[in-house]
Amino acid sequence: MSEQPTIAVLGTGRIGKMHAELIARQVPGLGLHSVFDVYTEGAAAVAADLGVPAAASVEEIMASDADAVAICTSTDTHVDLVVAAAEAGKAIFLEKPVSLNLEEVDRAVAAVKAAGVPLQVGFNRRFDPAHAAVQQAVANGSVGDVHMVKITSRDPAPPPIEYIKVSGGIFCDMTIHDFDMARFVTGSEIVEVYVKAAVRIDPAIGEAGDVDTAMLLLTHENGAFTYIDNSRQAVYGYDQRVEAFGSAGMAASENPREHTAELHTADGTRQQNIPYFFLERYIPSYLAEWEAFREGLASGTMPVTIDDGRAPLVAGLAAWKSYHEGRPVRCEEIG
Amino acid sequence: MSEQPTIAVLGTGRIGKMHAELIARQVPGLGLHSVFDVYTEGAAAVAADLGVPAAASVEEIMASDADAVAICTSTDTHVDLVVAAAEAGKAIFLEKPVSLNLEEVDRAVAAVKAAGVPLQVGFNRRFDPAHAAVQQAVANGSVGDVHMVKITSRDPAPPPIEYIKVSGGIFCDMTIHDFDMARFVTGSEIVEVYVKAAVRIDPAIGEAGDVDTAMLLLTHENGAFTYIDNSRQAVYGYDQRVEAFGSAGMAASENPREHTAELHTADGTRQQNIPYFFLERYIPSYLAEWEAFREGLASGTMPVTIDDGRAPLVAGLAAWKSYHEGRPVRCEEIG
Amino acid sequence: MSEQPTIAVLGTGRIGKMHAELIARQVPGLGLHSVFDVYTEGAAAVAADLGVPAAASVEEIMASDADAVAICTSTDTHVDLVVAAAEAGKAIFLEKPVSLNLEEVDRAVAAVKAAGVPLQVGFNRRFDPAHAAVQQAVANGSVGDVHMVKITSRDPAPPPIEYIKVSGGIFCDMTIHDFDMARFVTGSEIVEVYVKAAVRIDPAIGEAGDVDTAMLLLTHENGAFTYIDNSRQAVYGYDQRVEAFGSAGMAASENPREHTAELHTADGTRQQNIPYFFLERYIPSYLAEWEAFREGLASGTMPVTIDDGRAPLVAGLAAWKSYHEGRPVRCEEIG
Amino acid sequence: MSEQPTIAVLGTGRIGKMHAELIARQVPGLGLHSVFDVYTEGAAAVAADLGVPAAASVEEIMASDADAVAICTSTDTHVDLVVAAAEAGKAIFLEKPVSLNLEEVDRAVAAVKAAGVPLQVGFNRRFDPAHAAVQQAVANGSVGDVHMVKITSRDPAPPPIEYIKVSGGIFCDMTIHDFDMARFVTGSEIVEVYVKAAVRIDPAIGEAGDVDTAMLLLTHENGAFTYIDNSRQAVYGYDQRVEAFGSAGMAASENPREHTAELHTADGTRQQNIPYFFLERYIPSYLAEWEAFREGLASGTMPVTIDDGRAPLVAGLAAWKSYHEGRPVRCEEIG
Repeated sequence: MSEQPTIAVLGTGRIGKMHAELIARQVPGLGLHSVFDVYTEGAAAVAADLGVPAAASVEEIMASDADAVAICTSTDTHVDLVVAAAEAGKAIFLEKPVSLNLEEVDRAVAAVKAAGVPLQVGFNRRFDPAHAAVQQAVANGSVGDVHMVKITSRDPAPPPIEYIKVSGGIFCDMTIHDFDMARFVTGSEIVEVYVKAAVRIDPAIGEAGDVDTAMLLLTHENGAFTYIDNSRQAVYGYDQRVEAFGSAGMAASENPREHTAELHTADGTRQQNIPYFFLERYIPSYLAEWEAFREGLASGTMPVTIDDGRAPLVAGLAAWKSYHEGRPVRCEEIG
Repeated sequence: MSEQPTIAVLGTGRIGKMHAELIARQVPGLGLHSVFDVYTEGAAAVAADLGVPAAASVEEIMASDADAVAICTSTDTHVDLVVAAAEAGKAIFLEKPVSLNLEEVDRAVAAVKAAGVPLQVGFNRRFDPAHAAVQQAVANGSVGDVHMVKITSRDPAPPPIEYIKVSGGIFCDMTIHDFDMARFVTGSEIVEVYVKAAVRIDPAIGEAGDVDTAMLLLTHENGAFTYIDNSRQAVYGYDQRVEAFGSAGMAASENPREHTAELHTADGTRQQNIPYFFLERYIPSYLAEWEAFREGLASGTMPVTIDDGRAPLVAGLAAWKSYHEGRPVRCEEIG
Repeated sequence: MSEQPTIAVLGTGRIGKMHAELIARQVPGLGLHSVFDVYTEGAAAVAADLGVPAAASVEEIMASDADAVAICTSTDTHVDLVVAAAEAGKAIFLEKPVSLNLEEVDRAVAAVKAAGVPLQVGFNRRFDPAHAAVQQAVANGSVGDVHMVKITSRDPAPPPIEYIKVSGGIFCDMTIHDFDMARFVTGSEIVEVYVKAAVRIDPAIGEAGDVDTAMLLLTHENGAFTYIDNSRQAVYGYDQRVEAFGSAGMAASENPREHTAELHTADGTRQQNIPYFFLERYIPSYLAEWEAFREGLASGTMPVTIDDGRAPLVAGLAAWKSYHEGRPVRCEEIG
Repeated sequence: MSEQPTIAVLGTGRIGKMHAELIARQVPGLGLHSVFDVYTEGAAAVAADLGVPAAASVEEIMASDADAVAICTSTDTHVDLVVAAAEAGKAIFLEKPVSLNLEEVDRAVAAVKAAGVPLQVGFNRRFDPAHAAVQQAVANGSVGDVHMVKITSRDPAPPPIEYIKVSGGIFCDMTIHDFDMARFVTGSEIVEVYVKAAVRIDPAIGEAGDVDTAMLLLTHENGAFTYIDNSRQAVYGYDQRVEAFGSAGMAASENPREHTAELHTADGTRQQNIPYFFLERYIPSYLAEWEAFREGLASGTMPVTIDDGRAPLVAGLAAWKSYHEGRPVRCEEIG
């Protein structure tokens, strides 16, 4: 590995562009190698802004001297790119979800393990300082044996219907972050999923075969329970909270506010809303995620592995089965 | 009804004594008539302290000129006392739960409706100013259509095992408050209950046939979902929170602290715990409950009726069935 | 002293009535002996409500078997009543201020010391749990050497102009509590006072010779500085905060809210106001004050002595001198 | 002015390096032209990191095509550089304080006004979103007529003694930000200053002729009062709060925490500290400051003028005079 490893970013949509900027400008010790997108104009603009080449093809990147690739393309392309990168011996940063198809995930797992390349899945919320402090409080015993975890995860507004149609639905697109958080905080695998869900925000979401409002109960291998709720539209902002309760206490991450000013009048007290946009809320977590990737390149061990990418998909598929069958579903029923 | 209606308190255990003191000393416009307990020494002490007679028997109270009775005895005596009071034409304040047996509840319902006496069930949490503000925010449209309600209700320490054995178990003893809160906040009946529960705190609780840790998902008639969690032991205090989320926003009641002092040092910030004891937390709600009872005596309409006493018991029985059968249970399966 | 000492309350205006009710109903171990007021109808009503006699005269009370008197009459009568009670051998609870005249205060001091009776001045805020925790954090070393104290003390609305005319003005009526708090928290005497003040709320207050808005800087014997601000009208409620800063950290008591519910909408977050009425804010402090008086009767040592009553008056008079002369004034210039 | 104006940064110490990085990487619409420092190795390193030239001299920069200069050198060089830049027709960003000498400030004022170049003084705290919201609440009438402002501004640790010796002392180095904030929030000039100050943290600070602990009371032209406190060492972090109180309410900016996680155990509640480092606390304000500079270049009107740089120095000099003479000092006594 080079002294300052370089990373080629595949996919320069919203998330890929953000990663490219972070690597180029804000993460000491990593360099941006180049970018690529099938939408070449987008890639060219990002490349020009950041002063790196826009590659003409994926193959060009795989053949290059980039130390790693960051796969930020659409989900259906993930596994092929993982396989290609593994075969090219590149370290891999892979945006979630790995795939919507479990056999495809397994193909990626096999390729990565065969090649022995380091791979980190982009579950950035693990790196949020407040959520990470909750996990730490469990891991270091401050909350004692963990009995219950509560995760609230609500978007400020639904994505476009066209996106929803290819997203794998709320459980594989949105809840997948929360399944990962549940595993991360409890330190234990999910063994059962029960779901109540509905279309409450936009009938078009229902027509697309998805739901927009959900409550889930999970059972973990170690006996802990996790509660999750999701909504595609919290009009007051991007609501992201995690709470772990156990025999010795409770740790909780609350929402920050946009700023701390308050106004007190005869009508009561007013505060700012919580941040609306996920980048505003989670930018420190994306930065920390890249710092962890840099450490992982040095040590050879990544903090969020391809197996950590597989488990939440199993839970997501179990959630859909629970929703359709109106009963708790064991993860072992899925695979 | 008298200008200052008087109330005879039946049962002078912890909760009955508290009600007697509140009526005698802190609720303007109500008077304490007398007290009674089969444990005559306890009744005599309370009577002496508050300057009222200790009645020799329930019959003496029913034959007296007391305008109302407050039934604060053990649960298994509730229905007989309700029937006797109804027949005596007394207004009734009845501690929860009405009974652990649905047929018995129905006998109470019939007696009260036949006699036409006003009756209020002691779901005091409805009168907590913060929880009531959450309900108001739903009722007045501030949160829009209500999609999800979250209730966290955790005791600081388990009750004695002897109490647990006759309590009806966690769902009929503890969660019953939360079932009532779910109906109160959503303004809609519970139609389905799903439970995950376990013994995590004290094996003796399990040996008594009960659980001490539970997560529940409820479905309401209007399509809202409610999440509830219960623990018999939150070592940091009496944790009581309600949150209502809907199309226009979210209302939430947080835990107060014992006091507001903070200490900031190089090691971080420390705050006081939340109150440990339910009386400390909810004393304003008990006061407001009696003020509502006084208004109900004047208007003839009580805010928490015998029907409001029945519905949470159905949910509690459904919860036990869900726990034992590992599936969601419809309330109509119970009665 | 009797097993349950009894207290006769002199003065049944707002504050005297409150004390009488607390003693009669809420402080275990103390009994209300009787009440007296020159406005006999008021005294009779309080007496009837609380089930004690209304005395016909002060002399009747001084000659009675009451263990203590609570002096809650108008300020100009305080010293004569203190002297009479001291001569009668009664323990004394005395509302602030002792007097507006320093020589009169000294006459009270002499009488109390000559008679050797226990006396507690009614600086209730010392007993507020949050402010007391700030003082404790200083006393136990948690904040290290104390460098700076900040006290914000704002009323929700001005008192009647007729009251203001006889109040001794803002510094002897309102700030006197804050001078006491400054001495209490720092554990050190005030040696210098500097004032900036103005009439900003109601010109009638200025016409009465008073001000309604003030900022003060105090210097203590131990080198600490205290900042105080006062306003006669904080439209958002009764704003009461204390902060102590030192070499090892900071302790602060924040305002509680009326209740903890919050509403989050697209327009921001709304919370309840802080309490508006001083009784609502400070009732626990009045209760604790009486519990301390009860302990003081038993031990013979009161926590807030007549000397603690004198020092804040000196500071108040120094504040007026500073205001009129536009310069820092040493307390030794006053007496 | 160019489409994307370019800025040459003079001085690449801690603050200059930060400005250079922000301009180069994080402020859209501005470009970094070059950097200069008499410590050429430092300038070369920054230049290499950011991909711009390191100029060989100030003269080279003044003769270049840079649209603006950012003066981030030591205070004693400020005025000569302002004069040179003004004569070269450059727009100017100038770090605070303008100078420690009022005649020198006036020389800078004259040069800037003669040349008609836009100049912005680096009072970044005006651009902090929370403090700015407090100012807005005053400006838009939400707090009504402003009666009192409170500013708490405490550093986490003292600077090196060598720095203190050339800093102008606490009032010209640290309080100068608060004098600016007082003018900004009240919208009114400071007319009088009164100071209490002491050496409480490090005797070496006193030996250097400075103080480390201060409380100030200011009087404004419009009748408002401002309280300021400063400490060179708040062990719990960088404590920065502003509060404005008026006839219609109160607006306040509280300290953010490093993150929002809380731990609740039987021992109480623990939270993270507030940020320790001023860059961590105020980085959004520095970004907003540069966005305002960019707007100012376009419109020709800067939000913080050279006159805004002069007034706080007058207040700082008045503060020193008040400290030495133990009396309130009018600003007109200074100049």
